[in-house]
Amino acid sequence: MSERLVIIGGVAAGMSAATRARRTNAGLEIVVYEKSGYVSYGACGFPYFIKGEVANIDDLLIRTPAQFAAQNIRALVRHEVLAIDPAAHTVEVRNLATGQSFTDHWDKLIVASGGVVVPPPLPGIDLNGVFTLRTVEDALAIKNWIADKQPQRAVIIGGGYIGLELAEAFRAHGLAVTIIEAQPQILPTIDAEMAVHIEAELKAHDVELYLGHKVTALEGDESLRRIIGLTAAKLNRQDAAGAVAAATRTARVRAVVAGGAAIPAELVIIGTGTRPAIGFAAAAGIKLGESGAIAVDNRQQTNIPGIFAVGGACEAFHLVAGRPVLLPLAPTASKQGRVAGSNAAGGSARFAGMVGTAAVKVFDLHVAQTGLTEKYARYLGFEPDHAIINATGRAHYMPGESPISVKLVFEKGSQRLLGAQIVGRDGVAKRIDVLAAALRAGWTTYDLAELDLSYAPPFSSVWDPILVAANVANR
Amino acid sequence: MSERLVIIGGVAAGMSAATRARRTNAGLEIVVYEKSGYVSYGACGFPYFIKGEVANIDDLLIRTPAQFAAQNIRALVRHEVLAIDPAAHTVEVRNLATGQSFTDHWDKLIVASGGVVVPPPLPGIDLNGVFTLRTVEDALAIKNWIADKQPQRAVIIGGGYIGLELAEAFRAHGLAVTIIEAQPQILPTIDAEMAVHIEAELKAHDVELYLGHKVTALEGDESLRRIIGLTAAKLNRQDAAGAVAAATRTARVRAVVAGGAAIPAELVIIGTGTRPAIGFAAAAGIKLGESGAIAVDNRQQTNIPGIFAVGGACEAFHLVAGRPVLLPLAPTASKQGRVAGSNAAGGSARFAGMVGTAAVKVFDLHVAQTGLTEKYARYLGFEPDHAIINATGRAHYMPGESPISVKLVFEKGSQRLLGAQIVGRDGVAKRIDVLAAALRAGWTTYDLAELDLSYAPPFSSVWDPILVAANVANR
Repeated sequence: MSERLVIIGGVAAGMSAATRARRTNAGLEIVVYEKSGYVSYGACGFPYFIKGEVANIDDLLIRTPAQFAAQNIRALVRHEVLAIDPAAHTVEVRNLATGQSFTDHWDKLIVASGGVVVPPPLPGIDLNGVFTLRTVEDALAIKNWIADKQPQRAVIIGGGYIGLELAEAFRAHGLAVTIIEAQPQILPTIDAEMAVHIEAELKAHDVELYLGHKVTALEGDESLRRIIGLTAAKLNRQDAAGAVAAATRTARVRAVVAGGAAIPAELVIIGTGTRPAIGFAAAAGIKLGESGAIAVDNRQQTNIPGIFAVGGACEAFHLVAGRPVLLPLAPTASKQGRVAGSNAAGGSARFAGMVGTAAVKVFDLHVAQTGLTEKYARYLGFEPDHAIINATGRAHYMPGESPISVKLVFEKGSQRLLGAQIVGRDGVAKRIDVLAAALRAGWTTYDLAELDLSYAPPFSSVWDPILVAANVANR
Repeated sequence: MSERLVIIGGVAAGMSAATRARRTNAGLEIVVYEKSGYVSYGACGFPYFIKGEVANIDDLLIRTPAQFAAQNIRALVRHEVLAIDPAAHTVEVRNLATGQSFTDHWDKLIVASGGVVVPPPLPGIDLNGVFTLRTVEDALAIKNWIADKQPQRAVIIGGGYIGLELAEAFRAHGLAVTIIEAQPQILPTIDAEMAVHIEAELKAHDVELYLGHKVTALEGDESLRRIIGLTAAKLNRQDAAGAVAAATRTARVRAVVAGGAAIPAELVIIGTGTRPAIGFAAAAGIKLGESGAIAVDNRQQTNIPGIFAVGGACEAFHLVAGRPVLLPLAPTASKQGRVAGSNAAGGSARFAGMVGTAAVKVFDLHVAQTGLTEKYARYLGFEPDHAIINATGRAHYMPGESPISVKLVFEKGSQRLLGAQIVGRDGVAKRIDVLAAALRAGWTTYDLAELDLSYAPPFSSVWDPILVAANVANR
């Protein structure tokens, strides 16, 4: 009898694992349970679908359950795994379409359940017009809300990657956009002096910023509330509470309250980040790391033999931090998926670690980072120094300005590179990759200055901005 | 009495050396002799000046002799160094403006005389309208020729970097353009299967290609020649020869003969590459390497203590080839300039070697390479294998196609990366830099596949094309 691999979660990491497992072992039974209605989708493309740059949601669906079936991978959507029994080697699954639960057996299990947005417990958080963005259903709901309700103003709670990309999407639809960020800077995952470039770009595109402000409440449709309130007064107390709750459920959001001000909005995004969607893990005795995500070894195995975890559900070893971290990024998730898929199918693969490389486009500004920010390096106990340079991304005499700012973070004394951030209008994301390679190599800023980087006037100056920054660091 | 540093050649490498020497030693006397009329110019920008994208030649002049004088660096233009006397520590210099020669003393000498185009000894090579492109004077002459003579057709002899960039420049002026290349492919410094992309791009922009054809002659103004010939017949034999020679000097080019065909052209570029401009080296006892360029150690010192060489005049240690090569590229020249300038001024710097990274834009196509091509690797005695992939430079669902081709060259067995070539429409030059870093690190294609490269839909797919290529190489 062939072995059975069950995978919890069918987005990027889960399907990467499934595909790899199939390639490794043609005889393995592979079943994927996905809670949402879709598998194998490019979630990072949602903002571009909402913007309208990606015309059809189908363009983001990489492969359908039918296509996986052709590979003998059974992908079941709207199936939620409720519990894992490691001793019995079973999972309890609920079919969300029918409401029925059943038990399934596994020989190997991969947890690829990703992250979930946990909305802050604020008054009015359940109002209509308040969205999170994780699933295809979320993306469709936001796009339909814009089309059907014609909102004029959007508030985005949280100035992270998703928030920035949605600001661009909403502006493309002509909405007034406000971003409220609790930290005193936009994109708190980069250092403040680099974030100012993003803040300037957002302002240039008429995005209003409320930095250092916490949202305290969301306000709904007042007229509706008032009618309900008046009606409720005529009812007994218990009925009144129920009526108000019902009204709140059907009421639309009208404003977000932050710093004492009510910012009008008919569309609100909760972009405050995600937590691992691993409610079943603790009860199953799966060990979590300090970050609260599942702890794994470099084979992606958890503390329980035969149970693996990948993607946003688990930690990843950060080569610069020298420890596992929770930093859910798609390239890491895909790599981990391959490793777990291979190992669960009898192969022998190892995840080599990551350095936290990430990029985002904010209107015409490209932003990328790798390794540790200066503040995170300090938090981790490093003694960081930095070099920041402003240069042009191509030869200075070429037409069309291409300003670029590079920040290198390095260890005082040793000059070991700890991280980098680049902001500019071109050649940013792939320049950060040179520094991601440097981090993997464990290089110093001296090594960096010696790199033989390409030069042609349309692409770079003779001294690439990376080299200029390294030379400044080496002074 | 302060020491005296003489630098032969005042373009990129020479002025980089001068500036570094000044920074290292404030008391040093520094004199630069430059044969042409300009110092410190961005020669790589010439095609963009000729095209008209760079409006003024002044934009390419980074610093003037007056600006160097403010740094106490004496930069003398139109001064040619004719000979070096290592024993006497002198150079013989001719002032090309006055024709007078003089002798100058040096304590340290840096040879930064660069390269020179040696026109092939073809009939008609001296015709008017036949140009090389090395100096500011050359660039101005070509641009003036186009403006004054209104040529309709250009032939470029040699399909290397300069030839490709000039093809774009000439097409921008509406000229019909033909490139004649002796090798059976365009850009012989890359592998043939990558060059086909460039050939397609050139053809799409109506550039005619004569590949695998050698130029046998250039033909001049026939009507003028005929008149001279008739006139000459009436003179005695010796006068006739002189008259024909004079007529040839003043005659304009009308065609280039290759493969038996005469290709009409009123503008011809000799883009057949350069040789080190080091006529004075052998007589001075300066040792040359196998390549014919000056041999240097990693301090940029020649066999003669106190004499350094940099840039196109000398070899550079190629980290992948494991030997010194002659591969004149601006970033290497600038780095060598810094090293020599530092050492000549009493510092202690080392050139870490290069990997031959280069890039070029050909119309809308970006082309970049690093390390060894497959054919060069084979020539050097490696046993190379390769992986070629065609992918998109951004997420597949994003609008605007961005096809990209990546070729990895690696050593059979060890999988050690030997080189890479990338051709595409975006994100090419800086992607090759990741591979340049990998070459410096001495990585295998396994290491490459583990890199944590940035991802965002506008910039890359989740699996960056580099990772896809590495995964293919690892199968």
